Amino acid sequence: MTLKVYCDRMSEPSRAVLMFCKILGIDFEECPVDVLKGQTYTPEYIAINPNSKVPAIADGEFKLYESHAILIYLCCAYPGVASQWYPSDLFERSKIHSVLDWHHTNLRRTAVGLLLNTALVALNPRPPSRQAAEEAEKLLLKSLSFIENVLLKDGRFLCGRSQPSIADISFVCEIMELELLLQEDHDRIFSPYKKVLQWVEDTKSATAPHFDDVHRDLYDQQKGYREMQQQKLEKAN
Amino acid sequence: MTLKVYCDRMSEPSRAVLMFCKILGIDFEECPVDVLKGQTYTPEYIAINPNSKVPAIADGEFKLYESHAILIYLCCAYPGVASQWYPSDLFERSKIHSVLDWHHTNLRRTAVGLLLNTALVALNPRPPSRQAAEEAEKLLLKSLSFIENVLLKDGRFLCGRSQPSIADISFVCEIMELELLLQEDHDRIFSPYKKVLQWVEDTKSATAPHFDDVHRDLYDQQKGYREMQQQKLEKAN
Repeated sequence: MTLKVYCDRMSEPSRAVLMFCKILGIDFEECPVDVLKGQTYTPEYIAINPNSKVPAIADGEFKLYESHAILIYLCCAYPGVASQWYPSDLFERSKIHSVLDWHHTNLRRTAVGLLLNTALVALNPRPPSRQAAEEAEKLLLKSLSFIENVLLKDGRFLCGRSQPSIADISFVCEIMELELLLQEDHDRIFSPYKKVLQWVEDTKSATAPHFDDVHRDLYDQQKGYREMQQQKLEKAN
Repeated sequence: MTLKVYCDRMSEPSRAVLMFCKILGIDFEECPVDVLKGQTYTPEYIAINPNSKVPAIADGEFKLYESHAILIYLCCAYPGVASQWYPSDLFERSKIHSVLDWHHTNLRRTAVGLLLNTALVALNPRPPSRQAAEEAEKLLLKSLSFIENVLLKDGRFLCGRSQPSIADISFVCEIMELELLLQEDHDRIFSPYKKVLQWVEDTKSATAPHFDDVHRDLYDQQKGYREMQQQKLEKAN
């Protein structure tokens, strides 16, 4: 039975799972779920993912949500997945678990906080807040500094590795969201982080052509978000 | 070489790791790191955990941070760990990964947000905010409802299991923080969640006497936090 991947290409963790399925060459069906249209709250989708988030997968009767858990599952469920993605060595695997955990409460959280108060303000249920944006940017700089000085200290990819792992897949989709949506702020924020910028390019190359494929929609929609943002800001003023 | 566990018993994830080491009967050394005294920022501790958080472990030369990654490591590194804690079956293990991921951005986040604006306001670098406390409480209710209606739907323990796993260890330390620190608000918030309340009792029983052991300091310090909170509130008014 074909693996079903429930996702919205506007969501970073959705793109990570989608890109990884393509990299592995898995036979899967992409099942679009439009978050902005409330499709994660339909009874049909709640039966797939009671948490009403994307992505989720259904592999026959087995259902799973949370992108990191899905990435790990794909590495273990399908034969012949290269060990670079999710190493079998306990020490190396534990380091991957550790940075995936770190992602949740650092990079992911700060990126969401920053975007909801800047480029994606139209999606924020609260009024835009300059203070919230400034705090989120401060935390983002801390996260980028950690990636630059700790996670990329000893290698081209995260955790000092010479090839990308599932952690690179997850992180780079988050960073790409910022690259595309922050636009003019992007250079100001990212330019001190030379290793991070090089790592993004290296990860794009290592995952081509799937990287561009899953990010194409985000790029196309970028303009639409900008217009929505402008309208909301004008309304708030 | 004895495993070193760097922790502060005032931190929920520290208590989870500490309790689990005791449950497994691992020969380990508890290395106290006082977060409030800034001991996570000393050069010596940064060499252990560059993220300056607790807990972290050092198992010989191998160092690891993030409590979930540590719990998984302990299950895999030590021989004879009962499979209930971290099942070897791919589907069951994936479900544990999934709820551990969920924990980061739901229960953990809301609990921290609520406590920093109520019982632990003395530790909040910002002024206390009633709005932030209300929003955090709303999200906490959503998390509790998810645990009650989804994660405990089919069994006494999380993910419909008949015995606790590392997910129960992690979640219950978070819930216990709320139970001890919210005091009068605890009953109001928790009383509708009968399964959650029963699960806390079941997990306490299943992990006795280690549960009470690692929570004793929190209980003792509860009074001190209340006094600090009162002083900060008086100063703010």
